[in-house]
Amino acid sequence: MVVCEPAHRLFTEPFYARMITAVEEVLTGHGVPLAVMTATAATSTIATPPLVAGGIDGVLLIGARDRHPLAVTLAASGIPVRSAGRPPDGIDLPHVDMDNRDGGRQAAEHLLLGGRRSIGVIAGPPALPAARDRLDGFLQTLALAGMTGVPVAYGDFGHASGVHGMQWLLRRMPHIDAVFAASDVMAAAALQTLRRAGRRVPEDVAVVGFGDSPASRRTSPPLTTVRQPVEDFAALATRLLLLSMRSADTTSRNNPVLPTELVVRESS
Amino acid sequence: MVVCEPAHRLFTEPFYARMITAVEEVLTGHGVPLAVMTATAATSTIATPPLVAGGIDGVLLIGARDRHPLAVTLAASGIPVRSAGRPPDGIDLPHVDMDNRDGGRQAAEHLLLGGRRSIGVIAGPPALPAARDRLDGFLQTLALAGMTGVPVAYGDFGHASGVHGMQWLLRRMPHIDAVFAASDVMAAAALQTLRRAGRRVPEDVAVVGFGDSPASRRTSPPLTTVRQPVEDFAALATRLLLLSMRSADTTSRNNPVLPTELVVRESS
Repeated sequence: MVVCEPAHRLFTEPFYARMITAVEEVLTGHGVPLAVMTATAATSTIATPPLVAGGIDGVLLIGARDRHPLAVTLAASGIPVRSAGRPPDGIDLPHVDMDNRDGGRQAAEHLLLGGRRSIGVIAGPPALPAARDRLDGFLQTLALAGMTGVPVAYGDFGHASGVHGMQWLLRRMPHIDAVFAASDVMAAAALQTLRRAGRRVPEDVAVVGFGDSPASRRTSPPLTTVRQPVEDFAALATRLLLLSMRSADTTSRNNPVLPTELVVRESS
Repeated sequence: MVVCEPAHRLFTEPFYARMITAVEEVLTGHGVPLAVMTATAATSTIATPPLVAGGIDGVLLIGARDRHPLAVTLAASGIPVRSAGRPPDGIDLPHVDMDNRDGGRQAAEHLLLGGRRSIGVIAGPPALPAARDRLDGFLQTLALAGMTGVPVAYGDFGHASGVHGMQWLLRRMPHIDAVFAASDVMAAAALQTLRRAGRRVPEDVAVVGFGDSPASRRTSPPLTTVRQPVEDFAALATRLLLLSMRSADTTSRNNPVLPTELVVRESS
């Protein structure tokens, strides 16, 4: 299993804890060992040799950005690979996805139906397909309602970038009445930043996160967010990878997409 | 790098996040790839084949309990191995350690000097050398002061076991005036349990944790704890492993022990 992030992100992003725990459970049930490697674009050259040397029976690839060197190498390697998440454009890998675009759509409809009209976004890294899909689904739904030119701050899903993104939006849109953040961690940071700026949530500003991580229930107020079926997603990706390892069919093009679901709590 | 725990513990025990991040930093600097595997005693048979098959150049072993099958196999394998933490008794592996025993001693002296006389312990897993050393150092120091028969609850370093341990101690010692917990997570659980039982910390009961994890500064009151030099420990273990990989000297018996240090905050 290769996570395309530096190791510290495994521990600050709750998504990875849920993914790795679920993957391990499926593999252990099948008697298959799990090794977790991290490989950013910068450290790909270090991670690649052991993966292609032949000791690895299959790779579950998570979080690959556009033109990630390892994703390119793996796609061409013949090793059974399954991407957990849509792979970057132009890289042909079997995958499992969650419907990030529809999650963005649901968040936008919810804010529009709530009467919000001055809406900002704290998006994820633009090179990450999942982040792009969340943003596209959100902006396209606003555009259908005639709302264009929506300000977008880009973050890295982490806390500091949520604070900076929210500060930028407040300067850019003094009358902002809603913000959609592409991760719960960034949404929690936005809540904190809004409180420090003297804005009430949800009275003055509605906040919607993404992920339905356990932390989203512990914020004050609890976060409206988009639930991702992370455990089902991890288990399905793992099972499809095991299937392709066993059938030696590395060309399987069954790429299921699991639904996402808006969970409305007090922040919107 | 093999962590002898189920994967979910990587994410609930802050020690592992610090270890893995520090190990990755050293390895990346040396252009060496890192794969993290988990292997409990029960899943060792799954993890062993890829380790001994020849694709792995060296193993950093963390958290091995007594008679852990993988530790036994690795000690006999000829693969360069370095145990981060004293290996279980009877298993001969080069290692790096932190002075857990002296940390226990410092905690005991601090409580004795504070006039505490009815002292309980929430220890870690008795099969884990680090947990045993913390407990031994603590109990031996109390014994030197004439205090024997100290009640010990055993936990797994996690939150729930800290709650149960503290509840057990409160039933067993209604007049308890101090508790030493072998992890900050269990100490934080003890704080919560004492508050619910109407005990004031530190007025009624002093609490000392172990680890100086970031969370120990955020408890209410902030925890007195034993600081471990986790990053130095991880980096040193990694560097010594790299040395033995490069010199093909797998018999190195330089087993350094790094000091631990009591950090006094408001909980004692």
